Amino acid sequence: MKSFKIALSQFSPYTGDIDANVQKMIGLANDAKKQNADLIIFPELSTVGYPAEDLLLRPSLAQRTQLAFDQLKTVKDIVMVFGFVNQTEDGQRYNAAAVMKDGQILGVYNKQNLPNYGVFDEKRYFSEGHQHLVFEYLGHKFGVLICEDVWSLKTVQQLAQLNVETALVLNASPYEVGKPQHRIDTMSALAKELNINVVYTNQVGGQDDLVFDGTSFVINQNGQVAVQAPCFAENLYFAEYDAEQKAYKTGEITAVPGTMAEIYQSLVLATRDYVQRSGFPGVILGLSGGIDSALTLAIAVDAIGADKVQAVMMPYTYTAQISVEDAAEQAKSLGITFGIAEINPVVNSFMQTLYPFFGNSPADATEENLQARTRGTLLMGLSNKFGNLVLSTGNKSELSVGYCTLYGDMVGGFAVLKDVYKTIVFELAKYRNSISETPVIPERVITRPPSAELRPDQKDQDSLPPYDVLDAILYAYIEEDQSQNDIIAKGFEREIVEKVIKLVDRNEYKRRQGAIGPRITSRAFSRERRYPIVNGWKPGV
Amino acid sequence: MKSFKIALSQFSPYTGDIDANVQKMIGLANDAKKQNADLIIFPELSTVGYPAEDLLLRPSLAQRTQLAFDQLKTVKDIVMVFGFVNQTEDGQRYNAAAVMKDGQILGVYNKQNLPNYGVFDEKRYFSEGHQHLVFEYLGHKFGVLICEDVWSLKTVQQLAQLNVETALVLNASPYEVGKPQHRIDTMSALAKELNINVVYTNQVGGQDDLVFDGTSFVINQNGQVAVQAPCFAENLYFAEYDAEQKAYKTGEITAVPGTMAEIYQSLVLATRDYVQRSGFPGVILGLSGGIDSALTLAIAVDAIGADKVQAVMMPYTYTAQISVEDAAEQAKSLGITFGIAEINPVVNSFMQTLYPFFGNSPADATEENLQARTRGTLLMGLSNKFGNLVLSTGNKSELSVGYCTLYGDMVGGFAVLKDVYKTIVFELAKYRNSISETPVIPERVITRPPSAELRPDQKDQDSLPPYDVLDAILYAYIEEDQSQNDIIAKGFEREIVEKVIKLVDRNEYKRRQGAIGPRITSRAFSRERRYPIVNGWKPGV
Repeated sequence: MKSFKIALSQFSPYTGDIDANVQKMIGLANDAKKQNADLIIFPELSTVGYPAEDLLLRPSLAQRTQLAFDQLKTVKDIVMVFGFVNQTEDGQRYNAAAVMKDGQILGVYNKQNLPNYGVFDEKRYFSEGHQHLVFEYLGHKFGVLICEDVWSLKTVQQLAQLNVETALVLNASPYEVGKPQHRIDTMSALAKELNINVVYTNQVGGQDDLVFDGTSFVINQNGQVAVQAPCFAENLYFAEYDAEQKAYKTGEITAVPGTMAEIYQSLVLATRDYVQRSGFPGVILGLSGGIDSALTLAIAVDAIGADKVQAVMMPYTYTAQISVEDAAEQAKSLGITFGIAEINPVVNSFMQTLYPFFGNSPADATEENLQARTRGTLLMGLSNKFGNLVLSTGNKSELSVGYCTLYGDMVGGFAVLKDVYKTIVFELAKYRNSISETPVIPERVITRPPSAELRPDQKDQDSLPPYDVLDAILYAYIEEDQSQNDIIAKGFEREIVEKVIKLVDRNEYKRRQGAIGPRITSRAFSRERRYPIVNGWKPGV
Repeated sequence: MKSFKIALSQFSPYTGDIDANVQKMIGLANDAKKQNADLIIFPELSTVGYPAEDLLLRPSLAQRTQLAFDQLKTVKDIVMVFGFVNQTEDGQRYNAAAVMKDGQILGVYNKQNLPNYGVFDEKRYFSEGHQHLVFEYLGHKFGVLICEDVWSLKTVQQLAQLNVETALVLNASPYEVGKPQHRIDTMSALAKELNINVVYTNQVGGQDDLVFDGTSFVINQNGQVAVQAPCFAENLYFAEYDAEQKAYKTGEITAVPGTMAEIYQSLVLATRDYVQRSGFPGVILGLSGGIDSALTLAIAVDAIGADKVQAVMMPYTYTAQISVEDAAEQAKSLGITFGIAEINPVVNSFMQTLYPFFGNSPADATEENLQARTRGTLLMGLSNKFGNLVLSTGNKSELSVGYCTLYGDMVGGFAVLKDVYKTIVFELAKYRNSISETPVIPERVITRPPSAELRPDQKDQDSLPPYDVLDAILYAYIEEDQSQNDIIAKGFEREIVEKVIKLVDRNEYKRRQGAIGPRITSRAFSRERRYPIVNGWKPGV
């Protein structure tokens, strides 16, 4: 029985690019070796990235995986435990892990528990494994598990009963608020209950609407955390096992940040990875003087740097002077490219063109939407001409009730705040200001009453309940699946609850055409909340 | 052993509206009784409709299902076999069928084979059943199966071995080209092989992007079709079993229509159901003088009637005079509401507003997109003001390669031709003209070379390969999952194939924000072909 050193690769794969991922894995394995690691563990499906969705069904995947193995086999003198798609001769496909040393495959493990709920669709792609993998190395007994497996008490129990000292767990566990600490707490209790050490490596990085936080860790069988990697950082982390103490030594432990820091960092990482991996030179967004666009701008600058960020203020008749001032002030203080484009001439020419059709119909939301769509078209024009990605700035509260214009303020390739309720938008803005010497978001933007400025003296609260009430109702209905009657019984006004739920249900068509954006809750729209558009479900019970 | 009569309810549920569906089912059961039916069979999950997606996860579903049973129990003197969600005390949820007579539940069957591929996600919602249901009635032995069950030879074999004479099969089998005949052929062979009668009832109607064709049928154990209901029609159909002949009598048999008729009818039904069930008073679309909008218009008129259809021609500098003439001619001959709105003033005012940003940058696709987005905004303005749904007119070839403008010609709530390749668009236009005395689509629209008319003298073929080549490459890549190398090996030019595949891969972001539209192929975008947007997969093998 020897002491040994494990490298946890908190790795950010480029989904689908097996060749690039494998080259990176080889580099990391060699780095780990230089730092005297005996074993390196990568996240779930590290060769192809997670979730690769229907790329997993491409016929050449097996051939590409074979090439990946050929390359990985060149790594010597370190055990590698990595994720791959195992396609067997009987036509089955498994979410698998390989244990490889000096070009030899010491074992293959097929994931036994396939999540097929929430954001997960693994039963679309994979068959279930039915066997544990245990291997001996340096006189120690290791077992291998993959992500969902470790949330099945039965599966981990079976492994523990095989006298395994350390479970090596490969993960692609997406972020949601509080999840990093929740995983650690759960695994700590499990390690203690089953008397097993847990080495947990998680994917990091943004992939479309999912953000992976990493937050890899090592927990001793007494339940104590020996190593804890930072959230949202890509790197190698090390754990040393002391054979005398029969435990992993206490190493680097980075505490999980506070809730707002955690959310903010997740949005920064998701934005950076989306922009960079899609190959955009930069981003552009409409800055309105309101808090959503101000926060989106701050996140964009933190994600990719002020020199790659452009903002445009597009005032109209109803735009307050302070909106223009605040937008200009923020742009200047952040040092981004900023311009102003008055939209009156375009809106007027739309109105004139539509006049023969509209006649003397009274003004309604139609005219407001024309303003929003003019702005959307201008942003897209600038994006088309110079290649920057349009960031959409709407929040989850708006998107829930459809308080946003399709093809207007909803334009964009990435909606940074898509899964962030308005009340959290305020908290995030305050948080971001709290961590710099001078505020990056002008105070007045945070304190003035929110307004879409599409009518004279319009306030959001003219059309919607106050955001604390709205968000509480939305949270109950969307995240907690409570019924209309349940929510009314909690003390909210019947009329308001009925209105909000009706709006949520009716606006599925808008959300379906909206940009993707990073998931931070446990019930993000689209991948996780799949509602029909034509939908006769009546609220009530 | 008595002779008996079965009613097949080719039923169009309103997804999620359990109460409305149950009322309709009770009415149908009473109608069937009046026509002396002894048994009525409804489609899969008839109470809630298919697919109800995450509505199936709403906590009150069990309570609502209980109410449905209470209502259905009032039906007397006929056996009802219907689909429902069976939630058991141990927390499992099953895709189930009940056999009910005079308020008594004679048996419940839980679907054993849950499809979780293609457009199906049943493992997200349901547990698998493990037991057959056989019941005796009027001296005959019946078994119950649900949809995917009947495609599992093993499952049907087991049922046949229980000496069942007739398998009652409840289905929600979505349409795709050729599927109606394929089902009948497959079931005919199966009936003969296993010596069992098959009574197959299918859902009919559009539900978001899925169209259900119905095409219910009864097949005798010798493999012969006794009854075949028409495609795309909602009605009751009857089958009489002759106890002396030990076979179902030959009744009404409606042959499956030709391929183009089948596709055309599917698009009409999908459009009608989407518009009506979403509660729109009518539709509006941009008529360009091109074939896509002309065909979409014809379908819209066939779906909901000319009095509910509005079209707008929105010419610009590059619009040919014949485009305006052809659009006006078609509008007039169909008797729809038609208007013309010149877009030059709006486009010019966009250009002027953008000039300070663009400076002397050379014109490119940006300016073309401004034209398309001006049109999109005008259509949406008319939609907002008068309440009509915007129909999007793009086809699958365009959408595949991104030859369309996001927030421009892609605007709309329903994209009628979304899953129809351009070569099929031409066939459908010819088909539609062939069935009326005078052409509903002007001949010149079909014969002139396709053009987006966004540049002087532009033709689609300036940017894209000829549509027969393009569609062949797209079909191989999308529907058949062939690799770039495979397609080149079939004899297509390398350069063209590489370009097309690159375009398909790069335009996932556009498709993701496009309107839903009826699925007619075996690889429709979105629900059925789930590709990541950030995607490093390299074409090649």
